[in-house]
Amino acid sequence: MALEDRVHELADEVPPPDEAAARAALGRHSGLAKPPGSLGRLEGLGPRLSAMAGEAPPPVPGSPAVVVCAGDHGVLDRGVSPWPRSVTAAMVRAFCEGGAAVNAVAKTVGARVSVLDVGVAKQLERHPMLRAAKVRPGTGDLSAGPAMSREEAARAVMAGAGLAEELVESGGVDLLVTGDMGIANTTPAACLISAFTGRPPKETTGRGTGIDDDTLRLKRRVVEEALALHAPETKDPLGVLAAVGGLEHAAIVGVILTGAVYGVPVVLDGVVSGSAALVARALAPDSVAYVIAGHRSPEPGARISLEYLGLSPLLDLDMRLGEGTGGLLAVPLVQAAARTLGEMATLEELGFG
Amino acid sequence: MALEDRVHELADEVPPPDEAAARAALGRHSGLAKPPGSLGRLEGLGPRLSAMAGEAPPPVPGSPAVVVCAGDHGVLDRGVSPWPRSVTAAMVRAFCEGGAAVNAVAKTVGARVSVLDVGVAKQLERHPMLRAAKVRPGTGDLSAGPAMSREEAARAVMAGAGLAEELVESGGVDLLVTGDMGIANTTPAACLISAFTGRPPKETTGRGTGIDDDTLRLKRRVVEEALALHAPETKDPLGVLAAVGGLEHAAIVGVILTGAVYGVPVVLDGVVSGSAALVARALAPDSVAYVIAGHRSPEPGARISLEYLGLSPLLDLDMRLGEGTGGLLAVPLVQAAARTLGEMATLEELGFG
Repeated sequence: MALEDRVHELADEVPPPDEAAARAALGRHSGLAKPPGSLGRLEGLGPRLSAMAGEAPPPVPGSPAVVVCAGDHGVLDRGVSPWPRSVTAAMVRAFCEGGAAVNAVAKTVGARVSVLDVGVAKQLERHPMLRAAKVRPGTGDLSAGPAMSREEAARAVMAGAGLAEELVESGGVDLLVTGDMGIANTTPAACLISAFTGRPPKETTGRGTGIDDDTLRLKRRVVEEALALHAPETKDPLGVLAAVGGLEHAAIVGVILTGAVYGVPVVLDGVVSGSAALVARALAPDSVAYVIAGHRSPEPGARISLEYLGLSPLLDLDMRLGEGTGGLLAVPLVQAAARTLGEMATLEELGFG
Repeated sequence: MALEDRVHELADEVPPPDEAAARAALGRHSGLAKPPGSLGRLEGLGPRLSAMAGEAPPPVPGSPAVVVCAGDHGVLDRGVSPWPRSVTAAMVRAFCEGGAAVNAVAKTVGARVSVLDVGVAKQLERHPMLRAAKVRPGTGDLSAGPAMSREEAARAVMAGAGLAEELVESGGVDLLVTGDMGIANTTPAACLISAFTGRPPKETTGRGTGIDDDTLRLKRRVVEEALALHAPETKDPLGVLAAVGGLEHAAIVGVILTGAVYGVPVVLDGVVSGSAALVARALAPDSVAYVIAGHRSPEPGARISLEYLGLSPLLDLDMRLGEGTGGLLAVPLVQAAARTLGEMATLEELGFG
């Protein structure tokens, strides 16, 4: 089967959320030993978890993992980021050595860290935490031609899917957090977000990890040029991903679709994850039912993606680091939403029925 | 020594925060392997933790505990809450049996639960999780006379302090979360908040766990009557606490002061904790340096207290359950703030110095 067909097959496997389980969870909430609604946002999240798992109360996800998808970007040569390309590989090494922010945050919430190289420019040394699945050593400049071929985009999606499947099937992982690393990767994210939401580049393009006004103007122009050049058609999500996306964006699409297929919650990190969730939804509309917005990144495209997906972020901590850090910090909230629903006594049990 | 003097002695022991440690932590942040500021709110929190501990990087608080302080309220007889008084004792039993929201959330974040009876109306059965330190079986009606005597207020403060001291000294607890249980306890909270911030009862009085418009009007009137009756003088914090406070509010004051004395972070839950933090600050101005606002409760007095204390809440999940639940959910954020500061590599170590 052609790789592209495998992506569509995966998307077609995403089951609709179990609305009956969600209703049962909602019913259970109303009988718990607390004033109605007093658990706030957790009360909305619990039934969503039931809809994903097909069970009420939902299982408590006790084995979370963050999948940090890494790649480089030809568009960096346009000057859209002040960081050199070599930072991508250096940070991947830092993830493997345990010295990055994602390691510290993952340790805090008890999540394992898995790193996926789908497109880092530099040749990387082998490491047990690193899945080597390089599709190509970075994308081409999306403002001058397609970022990659359709086949390459499909390969990167399936690399993310494969790692996620292995984590869930063999690793017992029951919650996936999407993470990303790739210097210049907020530029393809802005392209994808403009393509799928129809919002103009001046709204979807932000400062990423921190650029000055001149660089921001240039970055917006580059996004505009890319959209004008490719005129992406959202009816062909893989085509959009190939034209203006990134390899790690594609891999995250695979992680999201696979989580959805297994009924496992997928917690998004920031703007790169948000852009990938738009692609995933275009491929499989029901996939959004399995997606939880971990946090609100200050990157404008992140907010736009979440609005378009109909998701409200759990945290708002002004974090814009990527790597999965913001998504990871939401993990205890997801666990608490499931655990309160499953473990609290009812008013009736306490004699107040 | 008179009990009242012991409270003031405790307050006087609160050390000033270590500003040099905070500066050292801030300096360390600027060299870590991430774009400056990209960890958002965590970057502000790390130096605060250093100022509390007197160390940079700060220790990662790995043994959190929530202290749920429980008491009943004479003012309930005015009809300020629809719940019967017996719910307080029933919920304390639920805490001990592990079936309440606080148990589920504490388990999620790896915190132990400690319950303190300083004023539950009903006689409670002994339980290993329950510290029996009943000062009196509920306060008097604060709209008709003082809620309690100064001696009783001091006794409740010292009960909270004693339990917190034991948890830190013998239990190895390195982070305290304040929790509360007491039907009608948002009424004394509103009184305390109006007294210490000068804001009128119509702004500080809210719906608590959920009351209708008529009850809210009555509750505001009761708060106005209490303030008119007692004309509380904030220069005498213990007098204010005795006149219009609650026994669990007083106990939380003791928990906060003790955390501050030991340099241990104290994470506040909702409006009752916020009102207690105002009392603690009036007794020991430096105590606020050891206090972290866990979440933003929709109760208006909670927002007012935090603004007055100069604290910005970490979470905003529309939670208004009390018990310490909102504070507990902020624990991983505090841990992540400490851990990123302590465990991340520097740019220099990665070769980007």
